[in-house]
Amino acid sequence: MGRIPIMSDVTSANAALADALRRELAERGILTLNLIASPGAGKTALIEWTIKRLAGEYRIAVIEGDLTTRLDADRIIAAGAPAVQINTGGGCHLEARMIRDVLAQLSLDEVDILIIENVGNLVCPTGWDLGEDAKVVVASLPEGDDKPLKYPGAFDTAQAAVINKIDLEPYLPARVERLRANIARINPELDVFAVSCTTGAGVEAWLDWVRQRVQRKRAQGNEAS
Amino acid sequence: MGRIPIMSDVTSANAALADALRRELAERGILTLNLIASPGAGKTALIEWTIKRLAGEYRIAVIEGDLTTRLDADRIIAAGAPAVQINTGGGCHLEARMIRDVLAQLSLDEVDILIIENVGNLVCPTGWDLGEDAKVVVASLPEGDDKPLKYPGAFDTAQAAVINKIDLEPYLPARVERLRANIARINPELDVFAVSCTTGAGVEAWLDWVRQRVQRKRAQGNEAS
Repeated sequence: MGRIPIMSDVTSANAALADALRRELAERGILTLNLIASPGAGKTALIEWTIKRLAGEYRIAVIEGDLTTRLDADRIIAAGAPAVQINTGGGCHLEARMIRDVLAQLSLDEVDILIIENVGNLVCPTGWDLGEDAKVVVASLPEGDDKPLKYPGAFDTAQAAVINKIDLEPYLPARVERLRANIARINPELDVFAVSCTTGAGVEAWLDWVRQRVQRKRAQGNEAS
Repeated sequence: MGRIPIMSDVTSANAALADALRRELAERGILTLNLIASPGAGKTALIEWTIKRLAGEYRIAVIEGDLTTRLDADRIIAAGAPAVQINTGGGCHLEARMIRDVLAQLSLDEVDILIIENVGNLVCPTGWDLGEDAKVVVASLPEGDDKPLKYPGAFDTAQAAVINKIDLEPYLPARVERLRANIARINPELDVFAVSCTTGAGVEAWLDWVRQRVQRKRAQGNEAS
């Protein structure tokens, strides 16, 4: 029983810090996205496509959350964007204080979009605000089309869902349309994109969503100033 | 800082309760397996194969851990085994007290093998002993062959690893042999099985491992009595 008030203090402190980060990033006109997914759903691959296709339009920086290794940060740097690695040392999610601690390592004056790749975990990251403008959940089709029903929190708190690995549909029992329908049952407000980060199919519609979010963020910044 | 000693109390209490459960299950000669994997890796499908192929040899009961829904328990009952559902209400892992609370719902005198399907999460369940004889990690090939390096805890604490969805290898960048090599880098002691729960390929070798573990458990029980 003793754990509950302490956890509540921790999450309240996280929420306050996340709000401060959101204000700081908004003042700089930076769009911040928090990507959440199971291990191996394709978060890093989606970020690689986003960096390469938006090169010349927007300057992207990435914060990579992992239990250990800097494999993903190395992939991001190879794709052409600055990346900072956070190793949680086994911790199952990122927290706002971890983002605050690494922000100084990025040249924020030269960033239009900050993408945070959370630890691969469809459960725990859901409850932790990192100061983002939007959570994006990546759902891999091979995981099955029933996952929104079984892991509703990730879909309930996100603003967009990316269904990845649709090129595998002919070889799977799972169906893209059933996954779309199950996502809509949990959260009918979600913007949903079906993509293959292997072939590039569907990626352009996702990029248009990112472009619209950047424009909206800048418009809000101009109204505020 | 205040959270650390309290978490330590919680995990110590869990370990003591898990040891008591292990003794109780050992006295009954029941082999207990704790299945850990990402969402959609195929834990339930592997249990379905195990129930159907071992029917007539061993009596299997299943405890299903999920955030919500009883979709998996219904699949297990349809496969022919008794199942108890634990809904964690958003909690990211099972704990020994949850197992204790539902054990009375199973007729343990009629059980040879108890399979616990943990919440779909490759991170948090790793640290929680449920009184099992062995943890089994299920790794889905579409998740990528680098996952043992990025999520070492699950592989480090398991006694067996099942590589699932090998039928998809021709359509994936991931390779079964690279996944085997990466598992061996983290834990060279693991028994590793490559299977397809769609086609049934490789399942027989997994079942032989289960048979051997049941026989070993009974031999230990006979020595003790």
